Amino acid sequence: MTDNYAPVPEDKFSFGIWTVGWAAQDVFGSATREAMAADRAVRKLAELGAYGVNFHDNDLFGFDDSEAERDAKVGAFRKALDETGLKVTTATTNLFSHPIFKDGGFTHNDRDVRRYAIAKVMRNIDLAAELGAEIYVAWGGREGAEFGGSKDVQSAMARMKEAFDTLGDYVTEQGYDIRFAIEPKPNEPRGNILLPTLGHALAFINELERPELVGINPEIGHEEMAGLDFAAGIRQAMWHGKLYHIDLNGQTGPRFDQDLRFGAGNVGGAFWVVDAVEEGIAKGQYTGPIHFDYKPPRVEDDNGVWVSAAACMRNYKILQAKVRAFRADPEVQEALAAARVAELATPTLAEGETWADLKDVKVDVEGLAAKGMAFEHLDQLALEHLYGVR
Amino acid sequence: MTDNYAPVPEDKFSFGIWTVGWAAQDVFGSATREAMAADRAVRKLAELGAYGVNFHDNDLFGFDDSEAERDAKVGAFRKALDETGLKVTTATTNLFSHPIFKDGGFTHNDRDVRRYAIAKVMRNIDLAAELGAEIYVAWGGREGAEFGGSKDVQSAMARMKEAFDTLGDYVTEQGYDIRFAIEPKPNEPRGNILLPTLGHALAFINELERPELVGINPEIGHEEMAGLDFAAGIRQAMWHGKLYHIDLNGQTGPRFDQDLRFGAGNVGGAFWVVDAVEEGIAKGQYTGPIHFDYKPPRVEDDNGVWVSAAACMRNYKILQAKVRAFRADPEVQEALAAARVAELATPTLAEGETWADLKDVKVDVEGLAAKGMAFEHLDQLALEHLYGVR
Amino acid sequence: MTDNYAPVPEDKFSFGIWTVGWAAQDVFGSATREAMAADRAVRKLAELGAYGVNFHDNDLFGFDDSEAERDAKVGAFRKALDETGLKVTTATTNLFSHPIFKDGGFTHNDRDVRRYAIAKVMRNIDLAAELGAEIYVAWGGREGAEFGGSKDVQSAMARMKEAFDTLGDYVTEQGYDIRFAIEPKPNEPRGNILLPTLGHALAFINELERPELVGINPEIGHEEMAGLDFAAGIRQAMWHGKLYHIDLNGQTGPRFDQDLRFGAGNVGGAFWVVDAVEEGIAKGQYTGPIHFDYKPPRVEDDNGVWVSAAACMRNYKILQAKVRAFRADPEVQEALAAARVAELATPTLAEGETWADLKDVKVDVEGLAAKGMAFEHLDQLALEHLYGVR
Amino acid sequence: MTDNYAPVPEDKFSFGIWTVGWAAQDVFGSATREAMAADRAVRKLAELGAYGVNFHDNDLFGFDDSEAERDAKVGAFRKALDETGLKVTTATTNLFSHPIFKDGGFTHNDRDVRRYAIAKVMRNIDLAAELGAEIYVAWGGREGAEFGGSKDVQSAMARMKEAFDTLGDYVTEQGYDIRFAIEPKPNEPRGNILLPTLGHALAFINELERPELVGINPEIGHEEMAGLDFAAGIRQAMWHGKLYHIDLNGQTGPRFDQDLRFGAGNVGGAFWVVDAVEEGIAKGQYTGPIHFDYKPPRVEDDNGVWVSAAACMRNYKILQAKVRAFRADPEVQEALAAARVAELATPTLAEGETWADLKDVKVDVEGLAAKGMAFEHLDQLALEHLYGVR
Repeated sequence: MTDNYAPVPEDKFSFGIWTVGWAAQDVFGSATREAMAADRAVRKLAELGAYGVNFHDNDLFGFDDSEAERDAKVGAFRKALDETGLKVTTATTNLFSHPIFKDGGFTHNDRDVRRYAIAKVMRNIDLAAELGAEIYVAWGGREGAEFGGSKDVQSAMARMKEAFDTLGDYVTEQGYDIRFAIEPKPNEPRGNILLPTLGHALAFINELERPELVGINPEIGHEEMAGLDFAAGIRQAMWHGKLYHIDLNGQTGPRFDQDLRFGAGNVGGAFWVVDAVEEGIAKGQYTGPIHFDYKPPRVEDDNGVWVSAAACMRNYKILQAKVRAFRADPEVQEALAAARVAELATPTLAEGETWADLKDVKVDVEGLAAKGMAFEHLDQLALEHLYGVR
Repeated sequence: MTDNYAPVPEDKFSFGIWTVGWAAQDVFGSATREAMAADRAVRKLAELGAYGVNFHDNDLFGFDDSEAERDAKVGAFRKALDETGLKVTTATTNLFSHPIFKDGGFTHNDRDVRRYAIAKVMRNIDLAAELGAEIYVAWGGREGAEFGGSKDVQSAMARMKEAFDTLGDYVTEQGYDIRFAIEPKPNEPRGNILLPTLGHALAFINELERPELVGINPEIGHEEMAGLDFAAGIRQAMWHGKLYHIDLNGQTGPRFDQDLRFGAGNVGGAFWVVDAVEEGIAKGQYTGPIHFDYKPPRVEDDNGVWVSAAACMRNYKILQAKVRAFRADPEVQEALAAARVAELATPTLAEGETWADLKDVKVDVEGLAAKGMAFEHLDQLALEHLYGVR
Repeated sequence: MTDNYAPVPEDKFSFGIWTVGWAAQDVFGSATREAMAADRAVRKLAELGAYGVNFHDNDLFGFDDSEAERDAKVGAFRKALDETGLKVTTATTNLFSHPIFKDGGFTHNDRDVRRYAIAKVMRNIDLAAELGAEIYVAWGGREGAEFGGSKDVQSAMARMKEAFDTLGDYVTEQGYDIRFAIEPKPNEPRGNILLPTLGHALAFINELERPELVGINPEIGHEEMAGLDFAAGIRQAMWHGKLYHIDLNGQTGPRFDQDLRFGAGNVGGAFWVVDAVEEGIAKGQYTGPIHFDYKPPRVEDDNGVWVSAAACMRNYKILQAKVRAFRADPEVQEALAAARVAELATPTLAEGETWADLKDVKVDVEGLAAKGMAFEHLDQLALEHLYGVR
Repeated sequence: MTDNYAPVPEDKFSFGIWTVGWAAQDVFGSATREAMAADRAVRKLAELGAYGVNFHDNDLFGFDDSEAERDAKVGAFRKALDETGLKVTTATTNLFSHPIFKDGGFTHNDRDVRRYAIAKVMRNIDLAAELGAEIYVAWGGREGAEFGGSKDVQSAMARMKEAFDTLGDYVTEQGYDIRFAIEPKPNEPRGNILLPTLGHALAFINELERPELVGINPEIGHEEMAGLDFAAGIRQAMWHGKLYHIDLNGQTGPRFDQDLRFGAGNVGGAFWVVDAVEEGIAKGQYTGPIHFDYKPPRVEDDNGVWVSAAACMRNYKILQAKVRAFRADPEVQEALAAARVAELATPTLAEGETWADLKDVKVDVEGLAAKGMAFEHLDQLALEHLYGVR
């Protein structure tokens, strides 16, 4: 039997090295798995059918490694890429694990740390460019504060802008074909984090010197930690032309950052996320990889790591088949028509109309008020496609 | 004894007519208070020391009122304004109570409703201009959906833009000195609402034809329903130059929209909100009224309504005194210095530096990593100012 | 084609009259549907395949109706029951809609209201008994407070106990075959509600004079408003022998009380809820109806009401088939074994062992520490059953 | 100047060794502070004015330490206690940090781990008894699951009961004067945790063989992670006679477990928590220490650790003075009377009345419906006491 859901490179599935490589240390306990060299992650992901990887600098080598150690580890990573054909789609910088970044990187109160943080990014951008990454993700892990007084938010915004403007100059002047993708998060590990949602990040980008170089990398779990609808969020981002990358995983509403495998957590939400991503791909609004950023739970051993990684890809393909069937179903199309969903694509003003044509518009108020929207029927059809009973 | 906290018009306190006028009907029960005519609200608010009011069209007159009824009620409202000297600082349109708006106004799937909604806004803008309002608030009460399939989000964004562009033309061509302020909300009464946070709204504004006419009107409770820090949010909005109006009230985290009186709910958050607003006023970044949008709880009678309204103003003045004392306290200034808060205002790059000056920067990594941020001491001083024990 | 998911009375599906009968008035808008007489609800639910109904006194007749009006309306309701064969499985009292209950019923600060509330319950218990209800639900709609000072919680607990003790005497002395089921809710419409979760209610029951007469009626949405796992909650309740009734619906995490149709909202959670209910039925721990307590969204017309009601039942049956297939799947059984799930049913101490046998127990610490739990594989199988791809 | 808020041993303030001793490692980063020996924590806490400490076994010695190492470290701890006069009020077991406990202790799917967990508790109870602890806290750190299928909840409840029954036998037969206090938590580090709220734990205790030996140790942050009101929760617990211990700290609503210093986070909630604790002490319902369980944020150095510890105690004393002033204020007493708060202490049935006296009770429905509760005025007075402006 052919498995319709077996991943192939054409699916463009990618993973962060830190996902399968997470040793599972948390606030309350020590690691349950051994540290994994990046090259092992590459080889195993290739076996599973992945297309690419994303890495932090310190996923490849230690913060304190010598140049020789760094070179050896990067070499092993590169060798694994060459041998497997896996792409480096994306790269990023770890500006949150070492104690120097305890108050963030680009917006640390200490200017020296800010300078060091930008330099650390530039150094890893060189490696990213060398390895062919086209997107450089920026997750401001600890850019924030627990308390209102400890961070001058307006200055923090200015410093954040300064960092991205500087990095924009850097990639431009180096001739790198790299764009940035900001990853928002509302809290954890800081009490509150700057640019807490994808909306805040989109607004910020408009203030940059080179806004065309910067988009967003929203993560399902991060938006859902704020109770926000992720599918609607990325649809807004694509409307702005700013969905440069995406982090798929699972979460169960406002609580700690769970980083569950994609598909787990908000099962219904994942259906609409895939529907939104596929719409974006079809319209040319999303051209990045189908990227997973999750953590195999601390209870799993090495085998469980690969089971969960394979499941992320499999769940995407299952949902992809479902959303295609949903959109193709004639009864769904009738239900969409009854719910007048497509009517929203028609401009409210007719060609050539202005406000003056609307000012005294007469409509059938009572008729419109009485008319049901028929959304329940439509959503029930969607749910039945998700259930696989249609 | 002089009460330092007694409100005076110079404080620029304002209220929505719908706040004190709320008859207290909810999903689970009928009204516990009588409907209040707008002119009574005006007179009572004036007695309490308010400066201005904000109104929905249907706060003044009924949705189905005849022109004569409308004129009589508007006349009584105007008379009360004249006699009390209260200003109309702001106005807005009710696009959510009547069943015709069950799926929203500007983004209703039905084009006729969208046309009607824009017309209803224009008609009330005329009245707003006539009454001297300078800000026109737009709360998209039901612009959203329960389910992923029932709303084409990208089209909804386009229709939202179309509505604001049309209204921007309208006020411009009418010569009205009116700017718009979008009020975000994550959910309730819809499952998910478009432009769910102030960040999403700020991003949206950048796509408009006349972005200079549109800012935001964030509400404490709405942002806190998403677990977001309101003070940080309005500081970002002011950094963007977009805090046109503000809705102060109280909320206790992610749950239903509580609309508590200002000061109640998140007590610590309110301190930082006032600190942020006062910073904005001092810098000329915020020029609007100190506006309250809350609901006297359903358990209160008419007396309780006025007690709660007075308390909103009093709490603002109490907190205003506290944040001023906090900022003036020499020990706080020392603590701010120890926490290096002001250092964030210093650009990361020195005058004339570029990325090239940073690329190989050397900093004292271990020294910086070891250095504590001293935020606890600073926050404890803030808390003691809030407690009134310093 | 036979529809395997068509409801039949043997499924024991029941609905509150107030669910399909909700006219869709909310805090922000007026009703979008007409009031529905209880007898119409009965007839339509019977057509759809329901087994029974639950009613509040004021679902049948108005708070201020005369005896004659009451009798006529109850008569029409009874006639509809007789003609359709629908059972009254459950009844309850409306102690929250009329302004007299603004501060609750059993724990209102005003003693007269408390007396009146208990009397209102007794009068409706007579009707409930007459109509054959075996469970009497008690949802303390407004038993709570916005603020810490306005409610003496320990006295409120004592008054709550007094009310249930009095009602326990009442049904016992009347010889009614009725047990009570307390419905917990964390908040809304009050800021905080007494007995906020099913755990708090279970604890409370132990203090009653007749604990054997009182169990709980947990609602999916109410527990999920507190971010709690509903399936785990009802499994604990069944372990206590206290799951007397259940309210199935849909919710999307901590936010306002959405009362979505069953299946919508937390799709994955619903799978485990059905698994838990079916386990309870199989073990004789749950003997009540499969009850739905939801609200057809305000956007729907009368047709949408019945679509959503039918969907609640259909979704239960779909999920029932899925959980049965999941439990019967040999690969699932292997995965359960690998995850050692059944091992938890084995007592930790062997027959006859005491603490003394454990005190110096030696286990293979490193071996156990290294062993993965294989939960990802098991959950992926569950998800694939939910998806319908196995 | 005498500082009224300086802690003295009579205040009975205590801390977990793991609070000030936390080296600040989290999911996203490594430790920022050095490991602290327990005896140093004791000496510093004594200097600050604390009364006692609570410890996990592995706060004193490492999981893998030899007997000799264990004895040396316990000896140093004991010496510090002797020299400072600090009491060991409470002790607990670490059943969550070592990988062997990845799926919990008492409810781990692996029976060997369960046996080992109970043994580990017994061994530390011996030390606890020797050091004079009267309360033994049980936080089931990882007793839970990410997914519905991986844990048989009813068996887990049975195993949890078995563990507490065994431990109850143990302390009884050893003649130890020790009672247990269960600490509930809704989630983190597991997706969902058994006994997620204090209500669930109170219900569970009723099923034990020796319920008189077991109470609860609720934590502010844990209940607030579920959006629950902590003051109301502990008032219910005291009504049940089950508040054996308490964990005071700070949290900002549903999100990750913040463990802020007491006073920070929910400022208004802390006022009512102290009001509830002081009521409990006055009534003899709470006899334990005023215990702090928090984490000095990762940004702080050693100095910040002690600043935050001192602030916990200081904030309690400040709030204690405020709640006393609030309760003593004649205007508050008038407001309480107007709100009829004390009337809730009057039984609903008069002496000798039964249900029959209530059945036909007549009350002034319209009068009661019209009467406001005057809660806003009362809460405003509380807020002004908290602000220190009365």
